[in-house]
Amino acid sequence: MKPDLKQIQAPIATEMDDFEKKFRTFMKSKVKLLDHITGYIVKRKGKQMRPMFVFLTAGVSGGITESSYRGAALIELLHTATLVHDDVVDDANYRRGFFSVNALWKNKIAVLVGDYLLSRGLLLSVDNGDFGLLQIVSRAVREMSEGELLQIAKARKLDITEDVYYTIIKQKTASLIAACCAVGASTAGVGADQVEQMRLFGEKIGMAFQIKDDLFDYGKDEVGKPVGIDIKEKKMTLPLIFALEKASWMEKKKIIYLIRNKNEDKKSVNKVIDFVKASGGLEYAESVMNRYYEEALEILAAFPPSEYKVSLEALVEYTIQRKK
Amino acid sequence: MKPDLKQIQAPIATEMDDFEKKFRTFMKSKVKLLDHITGYIVKRKGKQMRPMFVFLTAGVSGGITESSYRGAALIELLHTATLVHDDVVDDANYRRGFFSVNALWKNKIAVLVGDYLLSRGLLLSVDNGDFGLLQIVSRAVREMSEGELLQIAKARKLDITEDVYYTIIKQKTASLIAACCAVGASTAGVGADQVEQMRLFGEKIGMAFQIKDDLFDYGKDEVGKPVGIDIKEKKMTLPLIFALEKASWMEKKKIIYLIRNKNEDKKSVNKVIDFVKASGGLEYAESVMNRYYEEALEILAAFPPSEYKVSLEALVEYTIQRKK
Repeated sequence: MKPDLKQIQAPIATEMDDFEKKFRTFMKSKVKLLDHITGYIVKRKGKQMRPMFVFLTAGVSGGITESSYRGAALIELLHTATLVHDDVVDDANYRRGFFSVNALWKNKIAVLVGDYLLSRGLLLSVDNGDFGLLQIVSRAVREMSEGELLQIAKARKLDITEDVYYTIIKQKTASLIAACCAVGASTAGVGADQVEQMRLFGEKIGMAFQIKDDLFDYGKDEVGKPVGIDIKEKKMTLPLIFALEKASWMEKKKIIYLIRNKNEDKKSVNKVIDFVKASGGLEYAESVMNRYYEEALEILAAFPPSEYKVSLEALVEYTIQRKK
Repeated sequence: MKPDLKQIQAPIATEMDDFEKKFRTFMKSKVKLLDHITGYIVKRKGKQMRPMFVFLTAGVSGGITESSYRGAALIELLHTATLVHDDVVDDANYRRGFFSVNALWKNKIAVLVGDYLLSRGLLLSVDNGDFGLLQIVSRAVREMSEGELLQIAKARKLDITEDVYYTIIKQKTASLIAACCAVGASTAGVGADQVEQMRLFGEKIGMAFQIKDDLFDYGKDEVGKPVGIDIKEKKMTLPLIFALEKASWMEKKKIIYLIRNKNEDKKSVNKVIDFVKASGGLEYAESVMNRYYEEALEILAAFPPSEYKVSLEALVEYTIQRKK
């Protein structure tokens, strides 16, 4: 079966609807301008992958509870705060085809709205005594910011090894999905061991997800041209890292030169892409992605059968098969 | 006696030294770039007013405990995170005479470092089970961001009444000092009533502090010229609000016109300053500040005598007498 997000969501359709309503009330404020902006944020919501992970892992761990909603909301509020800050960070004027909050209301407001959303998430947890959730999520926030900073530091020197790459994507991407799954298990009321198993499951999916994402940079864009954005931004990802490790000293020097100095030139970017493809970098990255995929399924196999489990298996499948 | 920060700090001198050492270890990270930046932040620390409030109010409430250090660190980490984000917000290139993190490492890194510091503060509290502190501080973060956003929303329309002004400064400034004092009392182990009294005490000082700050805008700068920065930025503060409330319809219209359209012109700004002075706006703001000062001292009077109390009284005095 080709995995499809609507089908995957079927066992938690009611919960997802309820969640959306609750989430709106969690964001309410006394300041009009703020409600105006958060209303705008709610409207342009994405695939809702994070709440989906929370509810499905709660289901597979024994059952969705009231605290699963608060856990999903905590993550979503923190994640939204991060997105709003990211818009400032990237000087992004668009997100998901809409104007970013940043473009519309300027940096100042974007930073403050981010801080506000964050404080709402904290209060939601603190006021309800969800301290286990808070711990899981705070760790994820720390790892995410450390991971992004590590990537920036390394990108300057273009000296990323495979190990550093795995550290970066584990912190930057996998830690949030891991947190979603740990929160799901924790709100189902299982013990620390099972929470840790679910956290690991999420981490594996997260790793596979990011490698897939990095592979897209070598795919074709909407008009059929290779993308190459990561190369332009001097972001070293697995296909390139593998190709450089295999390359001769001379070849490596040439490619690094192109990335460092000619990264704005379309022809040079294409040369780097061709070099990666010829070195088997794409196949290697795919094999690593598949290993994480297998490991995620292995962890999941230990859980009792249920409709949630079927959906989680499909979600793992979706992660590595998605087209964008 | 003329209050002096060194004398005020005397009863908590050891605690402040210990705190500085502990705070450094709280910020440690595995990412070199991050340690480099946080090291830079620690070096340019300010007057340390917030830890001072925490330790003095803990002392006056029954005694400084180990959790007082964590409470002070939580506030300091969140506050530092806010400052780093603020540097982005204000496009500020300097802070306290140094280059801002923003200017040196760009917005992207500044936002991430802010998020990192925040997560460290959260983990410090969560890992130690300091949930009461977390609640006090999360409320303050929410209020601060709401207050700043309210100020921005109102500044656009220049329609701030005295009541709105008090709401803004209570949220934007007083809530953090209130949180410091509540944290101090709470870590001394007193009951909810006394924590609330200390919170109120901090709020009153915070109000007086901000009004004093707003009055500086009508004082002379280092070369003897009136400052007028708030007017340039269309920030409506108490002296101006009072003057406008007293003014005739025509006069009000004229002044609003100058602020809205001529705020970049030194001569017009001076006209606004003269108008405020002639209307008795400065005297009025001072009288309100003195009322908050009296109210703060009244609350403090109910606490038993101690060297901490003497210092807190001097700190209240310092707030309204300071020269910058």
